[in-house]
Amino acid sequence: MRDFDETNITAAVIEQFEAATDPRLKQIMASLVRHLHDFVRDVEPTFEEWSFAIDFLTRTGQMCTDKRQEFILLSDTLGISMLVDAINHRMPEGATETTVLGPFYVEGPPELPLGADVSNGIADEPLLVEGTVSSSDGTPLGGAIVDMWQSDSDGYYDVQQQDLDGPLLRARFRTDAAGRFWFRSIMPAYYPIPHDGPVGQMLAATERHPNRPAHVHFMIAADGHETLITHVFAADSPYLDSDAVFGVKNSLITEFARRPAGLPIDRDHRHLAYDFGLKRLDGK
Amino acid sequence: MRDFDETNITAAVIEQFEAATDPRLKQIMASLVRHLHDFVRDVEPTFEEWSFAIDFLTRTGQMCTDKRQEFILLSDTLGISMLVDAINHRMPEGATETTVLGPFYVEGPPELPLGADVSNGIADEPLLVEGTVSSSDGTPLGGAIVDMWQSDSDGYYDVQQQDLDGPLLRARFRTDAAGRFWFRSIMPAYYPIPHDGPVGQMLAATERHPNRPAHVHFMIAADGHETLITHVFAADSPYLDSDAVFGVKNSLITEFARRPAGLPIDRDHRHLAYDFGLKRLDGK
Ligand SMILES: [Fe+2]
Ligand SMILES: [Fe+2]
Repeated sequence: MRDFDETNITAAVIEQFEAATDPRLKQIMASLVRHLHDFVRDVEPTFEEWSFAIDFLTRTGQMCTDKRQEFILLSDTLGISMLVDAINHRMPEGATETTVLGPFYVEGPPELPLGADVSNGIADEPLLVEGTVSSSDGTPLGGAIVDMWQSDSDGYYDVQQQDLDGPLLRARFRTDAAGRFWFRSIMPAYYPIPHDGPVGQMLAATERHPNRPAHVHFMIAADGHETLITHVFAADSPYLDSDAVFGVKNSLITEFARRPAGLPIDRDHRHLAYDFGLKRLDGK
Repeated sequence: MRDFDETNITAAVIEQFEAATDPRLKQIMASLVRHLHDFVRDVEPTFEEWSFAIDFLTRTGQMCTDKRQEFILLSDTLGISMLVDAINHRMPEGATETTVLGPFYVEGPPELPLGADVSNGIADEPLLVEGTVSSSDGTPLGGAIVDMWQSDSDGYYDVQQQDLDGPLLRARFRTDAAGRFWFRSIMPAYYPIPHDGPVGQMLAATERHPNRPAHVHFMIAADGHETLITHVFAADSPYLDSDAVFGVKNSLITEFARRPAGLPIDRDHRHLAYDFGLKRLDGK
C-alpha cells in the first residue's frame, strides 16, 4: 500500500473500508470515497483551491451554534436536503407532500391550547390558521401533535433575534377528536436565509439570491404514521419560483385569504386553511 | 422552479449556478452538485443518516482550533489529500516526489542556523539530518528555504502538547551556497493521527487504525521552483504499508542509519541523509 497516484488511490482507500463490519457504513463510505474522488478528478483542484475548501468547511462548522445550523443551510442551498427528502418520501395518494426541515426547528416547542395566539400579541397583520390532520385514507386523526414555526413579518425567526427571551411564533398543538387544529398568528414574510456566513459568501460569489418565499412550517406526528415535515407557502409571495433551497411544491402553495374584521379576529386579517394527510407506517 | 424530485433537482440546482460570472467557480459548483447528488442517489440516506452527516460535519468544524485541523484529517483519511497531491504533482525526472501537508504545519517556523539542534536538548535518540537541495536538472540551490517539522519519540507534535510553550521540533533553515543543509534532532516515532474527534470516530467505526509510519516533514522553497511539500519516512518503521493517510511513496523511504558516537554527536545516534530535487516553474 504505497506509491498511490490518480489511477489507483480510490481503490486503495475503499479497500481500507473493507474491514468495516457494519455493511451499511461500509457501503456509504465506499460510495462517498468513489464520488468525492470522481469530483476531485473532474475539477482537478489546485492546492490553493483544496486549502480554500478546508477553510470553507471549517468556517461553516464554526458558524454553528445552538441557534444557527450553517451545514443545514449548505445542504439546503446545494439541493441536497430536497433530494434526501424526495428519496425518503415517495408519497401515496392522500398524503401531504414534504419539504425541507430547514435550520430553524427547535426541539420541544411550547405546548399551547387550540386557539392560542403564537405571536404574543405583536401588532402585525393577523393570521388565523386552521386545518385538519387525517390519515391518507381520510380518517381524521385526533390527538395528533402539530408543531408549527414561522418567521415574523420582517422575515426573522425567534432564534435569530438576540434580544428575544424565549420562543415566539413556534408552538405545539394537539388536534381535537375530529382531527382539527386552529391558532392565531401573524403573516410570515419572505426572507433571506442567514447569509452573513460561509453559505452566504458562496451564494454571493455565485450570484445567487438567498431568499425563500413566505411560509409556515409544520411538523405533524400521529401514532401509526410517518411524521410529516412540510411548509405551507403563501400564494402571493415573491420567490415562489426561485426558492434558495429548492423547497417549493405546487401542492403546498395556498391563498392566505384576506378577511374583514369579525370573529375571532376583530381586525382585517388573513386566513390560512390547510388539510394535512399523513402516510401510514404500513405505506397505505 | 417548483416540484422537484430525484430526477429533476440536480439540473435545477446546477442551473442556479449558471449566472455565476467566474467560470472556474461555476465549473466547480456544477461538478460538486452533480457528484454529491449522485452519491445521495446511490446510497439513499435516511433522514436520520442525513442528520448524522450534518452533525458529523458540524463537530468536525468545531473540533478545529489554531492547533488542530480536523477537516484536513478528514481529507487525509479519505485519500482526498493524496489525490489532490497526485493531480498537482506530475513530477519530472530528478524532482523529489511529494506527499500530504498534514495538519501540523505552522506558518513561520523559527529560523535557525545550520547545525542547530531543533530538539532543545531532549534526551531521546539523537538524529543527525543532512541533505542537499537541487534543481531537477542537478544544479545546487543555495539560499533555499528548508522548513522541517516532526513528532517527538512519543509520536507527538509540539502543537499537541498543552504544557509546551513555543515551537519544538520545527524550524526553518537556509541552504548554504552549495545547496547543503544540516541540523540535529531526535528520532521521530510512528504515531496515530489525533483520533479523539469525529475523524477518530469514523476510523473506529470502520475498524481502521489511525497510525502513520515515522517520518520527518519538509517544505522546501527556492526561487524559480515549485515549493516541495514532502516527508522522508524511516525504513524500519511499522505502518509503511498501511499509512492511515495513504502518504507513503517508495522514493521517500530511506534508512535512518545507526551510527556510533563521534563528531558531531558524542552518543550513538541515527543519521538521515536525503537529497531533494525541486521542479522548475517552467516544468523542466
Ligand atoms: Fe422557514
Ligand atoms: Fe506527520
